[in-house]
Formats: sequence, structure tokens, C-alpha cells
Amino acid sequence: MTLRPLDAIDTPFLCVDPAILDRNIAKRAEHARSTGLALRPHAKTHKCLEIARRQIDSGATGLTVATIGEAEVFGDAGFDDLFIAYPLWLTDSKSRRLRSIADRARLTLAIDSVDGARRLFDGLGAAASAVDVLVEIDSGHHRTGVAPADAGPVARAAADAGLRVTGVFTFPGHGYSPGDRVAAAIGESTAIACATDELRSVGIEPVVRSGGSTPTVAAADAGVLTEIRPGVYPFNDAQQIELGSCDFDDVALTAIGTVVHRRDRVAILDAGSKILGADKAAWATGFGRIANDPHARVTALSEHHATVEFAGSAPDLGTRVCVIPNHVCNAVNLVDELVVDADDGPVRWTVAARGANA
Amino acid sequence: MTLRPLDAIDTPFLCVDPAILDRNIAKRAEHARSTGLALRPHAKTHKCLEIARRQIDSGATGLTVATIGEAEVFGDAGFDDLFIAYPLWLTDSKSRRLRSIADRARLTLAIDSVDGARRLFDGLGAAASAVDVLVEIDSGHHRTGVAPADAGPVARAAADAGLRVTGVFTFPGHGYSPGDRVAAAIGESTAIACATDELRSVGIEPVVRSGGSTPTVAAADAGVLTEIRPGVYPFNDAQQIELGSCDFDDVALTAIGTVVHRRDRVAILDAGSKILGADKAAWATGFGRIANDPHARVTALSEHHATVEFAGSAPDLGTRVCVIPNHVCNAVNLVDELVVDADDGPVRWTVAARGANA
Repeated sequence: MTLRPLDAIDTPFLCVDPAILDRNIAKRAEHARSTGLALRPHAKTHKCLEIARRQIDSGATGLTVATIGEAEVFGDAGFDDLFIAYPLWLTDSKSRRLRSIADRARLTLAIDSVDGARRLFDGLGAAASAVDVLVEIDSGHHRTGVAPADAGPVARAAADAGLRVTGVFTFPGHGYSPGDRVAAAIGESTAIACATDELRSVGIEPVVRSGGSTPTVAAADAGVLTEIRPGVYPFNDAQQIELGSCDFDDVALTAIGTVVHRRDRVAILDAGSKILGADKAAWATGFGRIANDPHARVTALSEHHATVEFAGSAPDLGTRVCVIPNHVCNAVNLVDELVVDADDGPVRWTVAARGANA
Repeated sequence: MTLRPLDAIDTPFLCVDPAILDRNIAKRAEHARSTGLALRPHAKTHKCLEIARRQIDSGATGLTVATIGEAEVFGDAGFDDLFIAYPLWLTDSKSRRLRSIADRARLTLAIDSVDGARRLFDGLGAAASAVDVLVEIDSGHHRTGVAPADAGPVARAAADAGLRVTGVFTFPGHGYSPGDRVAAAIGESTAIACATDELRSVGIEPVVRSGGSTPTVAAADAGVLTEIRPGVYPFNDAQQIELGSCDFDDVALTAIGTVVHRRDRVAILDAGSKILGADKAAWATGFGRIANDPHARVTALSEHHATVEFAGSAPDLGTRVCVIPNHVCNAVNLVDELVVDADDGPVRWTVAARGANA
């Protein structure tokens, strides 16, 4: 038997369907165009230059990243409009690195405290005049960000410190719970509208009002927001399926594993938490889903084993099975390369910003 | 203020205390010596040549690994006695890679099915005569492995296929539950004793009877087992603390994060699931623990944020906090290097087998 090249790649590995990827990217770009929202995708999901390029080419205005390290990778590759959506606490080293990025890219940074804002101004030095700053608002996720009603004083103090405050942003992460997507999107627009009023009351016009996440973005309020920052949508994952924000057919990335053990309805695959990630939200139905089989569940996960329970008899030893990770961002960060199942044979895309945590 | 070198490293990063590491390695080596058990540590925990070398130098007889990729890394580095404790399903590519490792290292492999054994023999070809094979036994974890009572036929079929069957092994993973460590160790020795009888009944002497895991190893039955394979013990982690198999003072690896946001008793650190791993067993009290603070908990985790609740007031913005990952094996696999806090300044050890899943 002649193996197709993809079949000759040793499992486990992460495999991308480029047709679904392109369709997901195009669909979100079209939604942004039709609603008049700027699209600034979060690149922490894919960490991959080829995918960022596709997003920009389809109309994204720039990229969102989570860390200085990610900004360095994408900045070095020529992406010249970067938002680090994180309330950085600057040290001498991080300040130097930020100034270097600001030399080659339009940079937007985040603050959520007066102390952080002052430290940011001090760290940026002369580069501060070239950097836009957004105030992070807590719209209900209760992670970072200031309460909407407190946004005015933080923005005012930042501006007084010398920063160019141009807007507000939020991450409606509380939309990551079944049935809560629309409510989180409403909370997002309410919080951003309130924060907008607060900034205006201290004489600052929030030109940028940024929100969005993959679960909530379809309900993003274009009457309040100017920008959306979804991350997961190019790939989708099991969480998005279970949240109702995509279907199985919309999943562009799977982990390909091999059945190494089987008994009755149970198969053990060689794809464990070191390729899928160990994410399991309290509401998740398992540690991952199986492509084209809505009845199967990954019921247990160890580093190199996934226990999969099927509705019927488990596949034979040696069968390859496509597993949909619960949280694709953490899966991608586990591999050096993605295998892309292209029409004329597999190609590999480097996960360029893998491990760029700092 | 002159920064100490460790303080000048950008957070988040993984930091090793070499004194605790050496003490943990020495303690387990002494336990093995005093009980007469061979110690074959699982290198998937650290994936690091420097730590494997310390383990061998302190008396370990060889290494355990989980994948062919890990065996390649340690084999290339001169470690010449390797057990791949996984029921591999061989393909042409994996067979070639295994034969290449068998050229330079004494190799022990695992089977848990007749089909897998035959495929292993076919894949190894002439190398089969140089490779030892152990039958994996399910001692209660119900992942891979054959039931103890079924070990005889599998071992006999493997031997008849041409493999050199020299013993049995098990992973008592059901010891990963509070209060179950001793019961799992008893289940381990019962299962291995039963499988030993079964192999003898088909004319095969199980010279190697291998078990052990960090939670159960203190109760390993030296009257039945000949070898133990703990992995986590050089570092320990929050799971081991909560299982009762180590104290806070025994933890040799932490993720160093910085407080980027605070309110009352809550701090948000820049160390999220992309450096800690997302592991949270059903019985875990949180997503990680805080060094030297048994009352604090990581109550939520996203990719670049850890939400930490303290018993008292949260530390100030900019404070560095040492987080103990729940599961150190998955944390280590997220970084390219470990920062070792040595007496004469930090050094870096490469995570040589990071991402070696296949």
C-alpha cells in the first residue's frame, strides 16, 4: 500500500485543514466589513506568520498579541500594527524591548491602573509619544481591567502622566460558558459605553472601543464598539462547539492520534495532554471531541494517552483518529510546527511565537 | 538598585532550586538502594539532560521515557539504557527510528496486545534479538495494559512471535487521588504478583517486575517489584503536595510571575496556563499553589493570567510570586529552558526533549 504523505507522518501531530481555515478567516472578515467593525485578530491562538498574513490580507487592520515576546516575533516579521492587550508591568528589560518594537511597528499598549500607567510612561521614554494606550475595562470577567465607572480617573492620570490615551478595551471572557454568549456581549457593550462616558467626562475621547472574543463576536454591538479582537475563530475547537459558536464542520485544526489500545467501546490514543493541552472547563463534556463523531468523548487524558469512549465499538488498533482539542490556543503552543493538509501534499508552518510568554 | 541576575530575567519563567533538586534525587536514590529496588526514573518529567545525568550519577540504572522522540534525544546524548514504557503501535517510520536507537542503546519496549507484539517484532527485524520486552499490566488505572490474569497468553504470543519477553510493568496511576496512594501500591503489587504467576505458567520468567510512580513509590512492595519508575520526584508539584507525597519545602521548580493587577485579597499574575499547564484534577484545590503560602490558591487560570486569592491582602503591583504548578511534567514541556538559581548566578538548562511527542 502506498501511503499518502500525511499518513506517513508519525503521530501525534497537529493538522490544519487549509480550506476550513480560509473559510473561517473570510467569514469573520466579511462580518467585520458588513458591520463596520475593525478586525484585529488575536495572534496568540495560532502564533503563526502564515495565518497572520492571511488575516491581514483578508482585511484585518492589525494584530492583537498577549506578550512582548509575541510582539517581537510578529514585529520582526513585518507586521507593523500591534496591540499588546495586556496590562504590562514594565521592568528595565521589558521597557528596552518595548522601545525596540516601537521603532518598527505602530504599537498600542494597555493599562488598568494609575501606577501601571506611570510606569509605562517612564519605561517608554521618548517612545511614549508614538504609542497609543487603551484603558482595560472589566466588563464582567473579573480578571484584569478597571470597573467601567472608574475608567475616567485612570485615563486622566495616564494622560496627565504623558501617555496618549486613545480608547478603551475589554475581554468578555465570561462569555465562555454555555448560554452566556449573548449576555456577555451585552455586558461588554454596556461596560464600554459606560467607560466611554467616563473618559469623555475627563476630556478624553475614546476613539478606539475594542472588544470581542470568538464566542461573543457574533453579538458584538457595532453601535458601541469600533473594533473586535477574536482569537480562536481561524481554527475553532471543542470549547467553541460546546459553547455553540461553531459546528464540527468549522474546525480547522485537529490532533491526529493512533489507537494504541482498545477494549469494547474504549480506545486509547497516543495523543495526550502534551499535544492537546489539559484544558477542561467545568462545563466541558470531556477533554476533547472527535472529528465527525458527535457521540464520542475524550473521558480521560494523561500526558501521552487520551481515553476515548465511542457510542459503538472502538476503532481497531492502529486506526488514526482526529481529536478536536478543547482549547486550541494551548494545543498550538505545544508544537514547533503545524502540518497543513494542502491539496498537493502536506506542508509545515512554524509556530513562530511558541513559548513567547514573557 | 542593582538587580540580582535572577530578578533581571523577564517573567514568567520556570525556576529550579538546585539544592532541593539534588536532595530529592538523593533521597529517592537512597530509598531504592535501601530496598534493593532498581531505580529507572521517568525522564518525561524533566526532559533535561542535566537532570538525567544527576539521576544516573546517583545510582539510577537507566531511564524511562514515553516516546520514541524522547528515546532519540536521550540516546543521542549518550544515555545507553532506555525503557520506552508505552505500547507503541509501529509504522514503517517508527520502526526505522526504533532500530536506529537500538544500535546505540540497550532498549526495553512495551507490549499490551498480541497484535502489537507481532507488529513490534516485524518492525524491529534483526534488532528484535537485542531488545527486551515487558508486558504492560493494568493494576487498576484502566488506561493501557492487560488484566493481570490475561498476561500469560500475551507474553506467550510475544515470545512465540520472536520477542525476548523479560518481565512485566505497570503504572499505578489510580494512586493520583487523595488517600489512595497506599491502596494503589497494594493493587500494584497484587497485579504484578498475579501477572508474574501467569508468565511463569506459560514458561516465561519475569526477571523485571517494574512499577512505581511518585505518589505510590514510598509504599512500593520490594518483595514483588524489582524496579521503580517515578517521574515527578526531582521537582515535585502542587499535585504531590495535595496527595501528601511531599511538602512545600520539597518543591524544586516554580513558575516566577509578576503581579500585574490587584484588588483586596486577589492578585493577577502574568503566569498563566501557557507556562503552568492547565492541569486541574477533580480533587485539586485550585490551578496551582503559592510557594511558602499554604493558604493561597490559584482560583482561575487563563493563558497569560493566574488569579490568586490570598488569605490576607494581595501583594503589591510588581511583586514577584513563585507559583507551584499542579503538574510539573506539563509545565516543563512548555518552555525551551529552565532557569536554575545556582549559588554563583542563574544558569539555563535546555528542555532537550520538549515537544518530543511522537
